[in-house]
Amino acid sequence: MIQVLPVEGLPEVGEGDDVAALIAAAVELEDGDVVCVAHKIVSKAEGRVVDLAEIEPSEEARELAGPDGDPRRLEVVLREAVRVLRTRPPLVIAETRHGFVCASAGVDASNAPASDTVVLLPEDPDVSAARLRGALEERTGKTLGVVVTDTFGRAWRVGIANVAIGAAGIQVLHDLRGERDPAGYELHTTVIALADEIAAAAELAMGKTLRVPAAVVRGLDVAGEGTARALVMPPEQDLFR
Amino acid sequence: MIQVLPVEGLPEVGEGDDVAALIAAAVELEDGDVVCVAHKIVSKAEGRVVDLAEIEPSEEARELAGPDGDPRRLEVVLREAVRVLRTRPPLVIAETRHGFVCASAGVDASNAPASDTVVLLPEDPDVSAARLRGALEERTGKTLGVVVTDTFGRAWRVGIANVAIGAAGIQVLHDLRGERDPAGYELHTTVIALADEIAAAAELAMGKTLRVPAAVVRGLDVAGEGTARALVMPPEQDLFR
Repeated sequence: MIQVLPVEGLPEVGEGDDVAALIAAAVELEDGDVVCVAHKIVSKAEGRVVDLAEIEPSEEARELAGPDGDPRRLEVVLREAVRVLRTRPPLVIAETRHGFVCASAGVDASNAPASDTVVLLPEDPDVSAARLRGALEERTGKTLGVVVTDTFGRAWRVGIANVAIGAAGIQVLHDLRGERDPAGYELHTTVIALADEIAAAAELAMGKTLRVPAAVVRGLDVAGEGTARALVMPPEQDLFR
Repeated sequence: MIQVLPVEGLPEVGEGDDVAALIAAAVELEDGDVVCVAHKIVSKAEGRVVDLAEIEPSEEARELAGPDGDPRRLEVVLREAVRVLRTRPPLVIAETRHGFVCASAGVDASNAPASDTVVLLPEDPDVSAARLRGALEERTGKTLGVVVTDTFGRAWRVGIANVAIGAAGIQVLHDLRGERDPAGYELHTTVIALADEIAAAAELAMGKTLRVPAAVVRGLDVAGEGTARALVMPPEQDLFR
């Protein structure tokens, strides 16, 4: 049986805070647990917060903002983006330097520390995950996995879903290629995006407005050394880039 | 706490089988449980299986098959598709009549009853979910939700993830628009694809090759009357259609 436990009672996180210490104090971790953390608290701890008062928007940012958007926020989005895929002011779908395709290149105003600030994605979410895993394992003596998550929109489907943008200590993809189903048919195209499914399960316990920015998924058997970078479709294989 | 329980010991399902009876015999359901079922067993019970020996492939199907594909399978894909988005023989990304965008218009050879057959998506997966919910509730006396699932590839990301293609008895979208985060910022673009996250969580317990085509997600508070049709992005809002 798999369990998803919310990590409750975490305080508001600020720059320099020890996220591992806060999580370890809030929940009793067990060997094999996968700790899923909304990137927002990782980013805040890492100081990835931008004060919009210091941003001078470009002409392009003003255009993308349209009549309803904040051109300063769009300027930050453009700085975080390596490529803009689609725009419908003030909505921008962009590719980040990590290769993630998402709204606003991951720049987010919700759950930001102050009303005139925005939160960026971590510089390298796989490194953030590895650092958090190391600190949690050292503190607890348990063997753990960590997933850093964000909620992404999807092409063709309504709504956002939680996905893995950083990972450590887990298999990220479950590769069934070459295995056979019970009828002997080779499952030759089946690679499960395990880390994304773990992130989605965690979100069910997190709840965006409930100040539960972390959840533990327990009872999986997914130890490994994958990174979320492996979830980025290589451009040469991507039919939609 | 949320729990995900595999439904183990289900037999191979054939046309006309009573899926509700099989599931109710295999697991003790509780009020509020969301029963997630891989569409494959729903489709087989509904007779949505095609014998490839009876299919005469068109010229278009032969082209899409390329040197490695089965043109008869591609012919079935074309018949299930209302629109082809991308092709790289023998891979076809197509839109189904339900509005789902997925590989092979949902036509699948893995886990098919015989090596020369393919399984289609249910005619109307929301109707399948509602029927299964009704039968399970009647049999158990419990208030239940049902999600019919399939694993879909995603644009820009590697791997497939389980999503909801049919739903009954649950909220499918969790609409946070108008709610405020703890800092007072309005979460104006946040609609969580709850049913997809439930499907993803269920897949963690299902396992494609383990003959576990169903799982129960317990401990959610998601009763409602949504349908998976609501997860299809309306074409006029879709930036990627």
